[in-house]
Amino acid sequence: MSHLPDPSQPTIKQASDTDVPVILSMIRELASYENALDKVEATEESLRRTLTFGFSLGHTNSTGYARTLILRLPNKPELTRFPDDEPGKVVGMALYFNNYSTWRSKPGVYLEDLFVRPEYRKRGYGKMLLQELAREVLKMDGGRLEWSCLKWNEPSLQFYRSLGATEMVDWVQLRMEGDALEKLALGMMTGQVQQANGQ
Amino acid sequence: MSHLPDPSQPTIKQASDTDVPVILSMIRELASYENALDKVEATEESLRRTLTFGFSLGHTNSTGYARTLILRLPNKPELTRFPDDEPGKVVGMALYFNNYSTWRSKPGVYLEDLFVRPEYRKRGYGKMLLQELAREVLKMDGGRLEWSCLKWNEPSLQFYRSLGATEMVDWVQLRMEGDALEKLALGMMTGQVQQANGQ
Repeated sequence: MSHLPDPSQPTIKQASDTDVPVILSMIRELASYENALDKVEATEESLRRTLTFGFSLGHTNSTGYARTLILRLPNKPELTRFPDDEPGKVVGMALYFNNYSTWRSKPGVYLEDLFVRPEYRKRGYGKMLLQELAREVLKMDGGRLEWSCLKWNEPSLQFYRSLGATEMVDWVQLRMEGDALEKLALGMMTGQVQQANGQ
Repeated sequence: MSHLPDPSQPTIKQASDTDVPVILSMIRELASYENALDKVEATEESLRRTLTFGFSLGHTNSTGYARTLILRLPNKPELTRFPDDEPGKVVGMALYFNNYSTWRSKPGVYLEDLFVRPEYRKRGYGKMLLQELAREVLKMDGGRLEWSCLKWNEPSLQFYRSLGATEMVDWVQLRMEGDALEKLALGMMTGQVQQANGQ
């Protein structure tokens, strides 16, 4: 397939390390919107250390753990459909990493964070980001695009359903962190192992 | 911390590519147990192509998408606590990959498959595998160990709760694959983008 890009549409590109400040801003905007700004431990330095920049998805031959797609408004003011738009402004992102399906023995994409700045919603930018990730999955001969959503966020769930996403209602995710994680890692190796039930 | 390994306990090691046949066997045993053997598309070749072997977890500088821990019975028959055990037999595995938390800007471990062969359960081997993964998280200065469980699998959920795992009951996972994924990736770039609601 080939189609000419529409110059009035934003561009979507892999983040480079010069995008770190705006990535951190958007992480904080999203957390603030969720009243959880105090939970953001990320800094520019920690993002530089843990993200991958400028590579296309595929085999994980870089030093980072996740990648970021950056959605940027058209650079030339005469091109934008929205007169108040600031040319070249970054207004959305998708932060993601590779996951893996054993039965398919194929990689996939897990979307950790999807964000479009509030003033720029209802323009289809979220769908453009999801679409780009779907393309990444196909390009890498992958199996699935997956992500999580808060159960009460019905508008987002409706949007995802309209795209053909399936809700994995039979499954619950489990998480171990902090003290519980350290306790499991460091302690109780002898003796209590024998008392564990189940698997 | 240092403690001598207990020679009557199984060993847990990163899989090497000579373990591929037994990994595939266990993938098939798990699927068969779930009446889903027909869903297993994995072959020895596809596992060799997509898994990482013999590296310790950390920065993803290898060519695979997931790693496998192999749980093996003690090699010497006089060492085992269970007289019928076949020395050196592989009886369990944990297949996992790195995930990423944006707020922490730290990697973590996502456990995709935990399996202990049925005859070897109730010995704490599942806990040993989880424990090794918890150690991997700490070693990589990671934040979390995460995995999913079927909601009706109450014995497993009880086991995970007993280890201090939290159920993410407010969240639902979404998945896009097959036709829906291709449709999103390949079609509807012009025009319909404008109609997308939500983000």
